[in-house]
Amino acid sequence: MSELPGIRWSRRAVRTPDPPISWLMKHAIEHPDCISLAAGFVDSDTLPVEVTGACVRQIMSEPATARAALQYGTSQGLGSLRRQIAERLARLDGITPGSHRVTADDVVVTTGSQQLLLLISEVLLDPDDIVILGAPSYFVYMGILQSMQVRVRAVPTDADGMDTDALAATLRQIEATGDLDRVKIIYCVSYFQNPMGVSLSLPRRRRLAELAQEFSRRHRIVVLEDAAYKELGFTDEVPSPIKSFDPRNEFVAFTSTFCKPFSAGLKTGYGVLPPELMTAVLRQKGNHDFGSANLPQWIISTAIARGDFDRHLQVVRAGYARKKSILAEAIRTHFPPQTRWIDPAGGLYIWAELPAAIPTGPHSEFFRRALERQVLYVPGEHCFFPAAGVEPPPSAMRLSYGVCDDTHIAEGGQRLGRLACEMLAEAKVGSGLSR
Amino acid sequence: MSELPGIRWSRRAVRTPDPPISWLMKHAIEHPDCISLAAGFVDSDTLPVEVTGACVRQIMSEPATARAALQYGTSQGLGSLRRQIAERLARLDGITPGSHRVTADDVVVTTGSQQLLLLISEVLLDPDDIVILGAPSYFVYMGILQSMQVRVRAVPTDADGMDTDALAATLRQIEATGDLDRVKIIYCVSYFQNPMGVSLSLPRRRRLAELAQEFSRRHRIVVLEDAAYKELGFTDEVPSPIKSFDPRNEFVAFTSTFCKPFSAGLKTGYGVLPPELMTAVLRQKGNHDFGSANLPQWIISTAIARGDFDRHLQVVRAGYARKKSILAEAIRTHFPPQTRWIDPAGGLYIWAELPAAIPTGPHSEFFRRALERQVLYVPGEHCFFPAAGVEPPPSAMRLSYGVCDDTHIAEGGQRLGRLACEMLAEAKVGSGLSR
Repeated sequence: MSELPGIRWSRRAVRTPDPPISWLMKHAIEHPDCISLAAGFVDSDTLPVEVTGACVRQIMSEPATARAALQYGTSQGLGSLRRQIAERLARLDGITPGSHRVTADDVVVTTGSQQLLLLISEVLLDPDDIVILGAPSYFVYMGILQSMQVRVRAVPTDADGMDTDALAATLRQIEATGDLDRVKIIYCVSYFQNPMGVSLSLPRRRRLAELAQEFSRRHRIVVLEDAAYKELGFTDEVPSPIKSFDPRNEFVAFTSTFCKPFSAGLKTGYGVLPPELMTAVLRQKGNHDFGSANLPQWIISTAIARGDFDRHLQVVRAGYARKKSILAEAIRTHFPPQTRWIDPAGGLYIWAELPAAIPTGPHSEFFRRALERQVLYVPGEHCFFPAAGVEPPPSAMRLSYGVCDDTHIAEGGQRLGRLACEMLAEAKVGSGLSR
Repeated sequence: MSELPGIRWSRRAVRTPDPPISWLMKHAIEHPDCISLAAGFVDSDTLPVEVTGACVRQIMSEPATARAALQYGTSQGLGSLRRQIAERLARLDGITPGSHRVTADDVVVTTGSQQLLLLISEVLLDPDDIVILGAPSYFVYMGILQSMQVRVRAVPTDADGMDTDALAATLRQIEATGDLDRVKIIYCVSYFQNPMGVSLSLPRRRRLAELAQEFSRRHRIVVLEDAAYKELGFTDEVPSPIKSFDPRNEFVAFTSTFCKPFSAGLKTGYGVLPPELMTAVLRQKGNHDFGSANLPQWIISTAIARGDFDRHLQVVRAGYARKKSILAEAIRTHFPPQTRWIDPAGGLYIWAELPAAIPTGPHSEFFRRALERQVLYVPGEHCFFPAAGVEPPPSAMRLSYGVCDDTHIAEGGQRLGRLACEMLAEAKVGSGLSR
């Protein structure tokens, strides 16, 4: 029997390895007893079971509506849902046709916001182009950038989000080396950022929009605003999006999702794009799928129209606020007092840095012993693009309180904290003995 | 006010124009009185309204199931649905773990089969690689190839589908010019092909699989089998897929969809892939969306488990058989007798070629007058990749009986036929006068 010839892959396939967290996901599936503070899944108890059932009943009770929902939609997405998205942005953020030239025509619906991040990147980026992002950042988007063979420049992030002074310095430095023509995208998770849980401060939002405009010397630099967690604030006090500082709808591509605030199983995201970018994205989406699944869009549109969406959002927010408090309490009680961590005002994540004596990387002693104790977290280093200019702190971790129930969050936090304390004590003894 | 700098697009964006039929779609939307025999939409009367309602009620009535359906799924898709797909292939086509090494692990669920065509192309194709396809062919897939800057070689299609002798000759010729290393994909719509309505004959299925294997000298050439219309046969006598001639699951990527036989609004497709290709596709899909919408997959899986899917399929098939007969009858009755057309045994399309004196292209007199009479078709030339080796016949058209109701199908067919007869008479008079 002749040997089977191998497949010759595209360059893109070669540059798309398994994501660094895939083995974490695999481990969690194979060890269901393990407490996963790693998974980015959403809370199961607050999924809109009754609301979805009621919306589908309503859709199916009217033959014309039922048929429309079960027929093909359009690449851009359901008109009624796009109007509702535009209305919400107008009501909540003042982004109106009058002030910002944004209407339902500027809204696109996608298969989660993930697909929109990909589509925007695909229409803008060639190999060796430059994307600037905050570090740490969303690792799935970093995977997209890696597969597209672009250069990534990282900018430090603090409690106020991406450091816009550092961003300005980076842009100036890139300009000085003659590479400004290759800068296409500034990527920023603007609310309760994955993985740090921080939001970009209002002055920095304004500054970021200004910088994109200022450095758009010969071509337009697009700010890719990832607002996936925007609706998950624990209070109503969330700043306006970066998009609100783009009054002519020119520089900022705003992306968000119904996965986190409503249902991940409907996998429906959306964005508001400048018109030329919309045209290019829709052409590309025509090749991808000529429209995301239609029925989920009808369900969400119906839920918004019934007022169910906004009512349910209060339940979701309260749920995450409670779960966050439980994890925060576990950190306060059980983690070494030297631990530096950020208490988020929304979202799904707490970022914690243990004392430097306890590295948390995937090959570390701490990680190994955490696995033994049946608790998982995302090592902080996975959230940093390699060699992009910001080195990961060795002892950081992303802890998610999204999917675990209250008891497991408390238990998982306690196990990690106690392990850290034990290892710290061992390190002290060790260093004492070696002296 | 300074001038707004333009956006610098990626090469892929530049190579992705509006699809040729987008203006047809736009025209149909703006002129709702127009009878569209152009739209590839599915029949609205046979959409599974009751079935979908019942499945959602069942899913939502069980809390654990409801939560699973509204939570994130996986990139590969719902396990129960993948098992059902594998079981159907085993039952209907004899593609089993024993005979073909195919299990649920080899099945992936995607956002329609369109997304899978894209993903497979993305992991295999670099610019200047070669794809061989039948001509005419599915224009949306041709759009993907154009955006990826690959070379396309077309092979003629007749009533038995893609001409495999011509395929062999094409492969030999490519080998002779030293380009065989660039051939990555042979694309074939194997059932009731879009646009001609023909199916690949059983001997040619076998031959196509053999040719891919024979010419896989230094790397594997993948047969991309697009079986989107497989379940829309008007009888139960449909040949086994090309995939059935790939006993070790090595050379053939089989793709299909639930959009046509069940509901386009659920936008759920699937495929069976060789293991290495599965790995690469799943990595890429992780970047695209890390899983298509989950609830639609649960609905389809529930419908299959309840037996509703197979029952509904009979309704769908009978509906298309009836509508096909109506359009066929209109062609027989009203089109010029010299018209060459194919009476399909399944699917959504009739391919017709008028006498050569009546060109049907988008800038033709015939097309203009058809628009005036409020009837739309897809000009045949849109179904041929430019300069790929097979020239489009000047007078062909794709007529779809998918979405129109019986009355409009009959009326649309009659209008087109009468117009063709009138123009033929005018041409005869004209040529008579000019003598």
